[in-house]
Amino acid sequence: MNSASRPVRFLKGHGTENDFVILPDADGILELPAAAVARLCDRRAGIGGDGLLRVVRSAAHPEARAMAGEAEWFMDYRNSDGSVAEMCGNGVRVFARYLQRSGLAGDGVLPVATRAGVREVRVSGEGDLSVGMGSARLPDGPGESVTVRVGDRSWPARHVGMGNPHAVAFVDDLSDAGPLLAPPVVEPAAAYPQGANVEFVVDRGPGHVAMRVHERGSGETRSCGTGACAVMVAAARRAGADPAADGQPLTWTVDVPGGRLLITEAADGRITMTGPAVIVAEGTLDPDWFR
Amino acid sequence: MNSASRPVRFLKGHGTENDFVILPDADGILELPAAAVARLCDRRAGIGGDGLLRVVRSAAHPEARAMAGEAEWFMDYRNSDGSVAEMCGNGVRVFARYLQRSGLAGDGVLPVATRAGVREVRVSGEGDLSVGMGSARLPDGPGESVTVRVGDRSWPARHVGMGNPHAVAFVDDLSDAGPLLAPPVVEPAAAYPQGANVEFVVDRGPGHVAMRVHERGSGETRSCGTGACAVMVAAARRAGADPAADGQPLTWTVDVPGGRLLITEAADGRITMTGPAVIVAEGTLDPDWFR
Repeated sequence: MNSASRPVRFLKGHGTENDFVILPDADGILELPAAAVARLCDRRAGIGGDGLLRVVRSAAHPEARAMAGEAEWFMDYRNSDGSVAEMCGNGVRVFARYLQRSGLAGDGVLPVATRAGVREVRVSGEGDLSVGMGSARLPDGPGESVTVRVGDRSWPARHVGMGNPHAVAFVDDLSDAGPLLAPPVVEPAAAYPQGANVEFVVDRGPGHVAMRVHERGSGETRSCGTGACAVMVAAARRAGADPAADGQPLTWTVDVPGGRLLITEAADGRITMTGPAVIVAEGTLDPDWFR
Repeated sequence: MNSASRPVRFLKGHGTENDFVILPDADGILELPAAAVARLCDRRAGIGGDGLLRVVRSAAHPEARAMAGEAEWFMDYRNSDGSVAEMCGNGVRVFARYLQRSGLAGDGVLPVATRAGVREVRVSGEGDLSVGMGSARLPDGPGESVTVRVGDRSWPARHVGMGNPHAVAFVDDLSDAGPLLAPPVVEPAAAYPQGANVEFVVDRGPGHVAMRVHERGSGETRSCGTGACAVMVAAARRAGADPAADGQPLTWTVDVPGGRLLITEAADGRITMTGPAVIVAEGTLDPDWFR
């Protein structure tokens, strides 16, 4: 795994408690097969994380070389099972925080190469970071309204696409859905051929909601960036607000179990997520363990 | 939390995937209120661990000063919620591995001060470490046989005390008890006024069993040192073996979900547990995070 036979440096960080192992590897010399990533992300036998962020110069990575003129750094994002993923809204903030803290990037707009293209992260001192999350897609017609069911309870929900599929259900109390030990059932199943991420949402006041999320393949998590964006759009429309119609941007506060995110939808539909990114620790992997 | 205002050094390690944050603090200068321990052991917002091992010179800690003549180092063990605990069989091996790797202790018998008294750990190169675990207590009479129930299934079980209470149930298959999302019910409840740790055990061959464990207050875990000892004693008696009667020590292999332990019962009843201890990584806590 460590072709350079040097101690391997790592950091651990999180954004709203979506946590990551960060591996600085500017020259792209680390070998990281899926098994090595899974071992690093193992919470008991390894460092532990929801995913891994390898920090590589775009020019040094075949998947990012074409973006090198636009974005100096490539976020090689891996899921905790070692599989490759395109983007992660909480991860890219932590990625940018690492670059800032290491002196590899300054305040201002930082373009980051990802497998979903170049994303711009706005970095400002110790404060929260903002990242562009694309636009929401709200299907019309029969796919618009779906039903989410947990045990013998069910709620109407709204289908929101954020690159990945979401079903957003408003509930009276966040505990209504119970412990979420199994995936909620979404009907009609045909509305989600790839499965759905399910959000349960309560009102907290004007422009303010709180949510829980069950992610496809992961179970309930502490935070989901695309889920918070889907929730903001569903909540705004439910409240009768639409930046495209109103001609001005709209910002909502979305509380997730692991913290607070601010979601802004512009008049052109583009969504920006603003939230914290924290570096917890840094160090080296034990050479006997990591080989 | 960091009264010395210096970067705080940490390591992460595990024994059969019972994992720990290790804080070297020879002079006992770190302030570690329960909230700080819980924050360090948080798996997403902190480093993550089943518990924390602070490494303090016995002479520098009021709870260990009386043991300083016998044991140079004190294992200040904390549960992941920050509460103080006496001893941990997997933890003390990791503690000894840290001292060995750091050059603070050599191979051979290493006495370690704990809140349960001085424990001797046998350290030998890179190999597994052995630690004395005390003796088992097998109640006679009505408390001897109990019943463990999960849902609508139940099994007879044996009551074994290892300082803490265990109910050991032999099953046909380790999956028989299902996902163990709730604590198994042990009856009669009066046999366990403090609650029970429950082990499910299958035969793997002569002198060899495999187990799952549900720990009081923690749920199912990857390993439990006292549970492995209780299982060995119950399995040996079930097989008709008793070192006290036979006049010679007996060793069984006990597979836990996180690895393999060897449990030896001597003719005088004293139990020794032998197993791995792994240091995964070391580093420093981010000063902005740890304050």
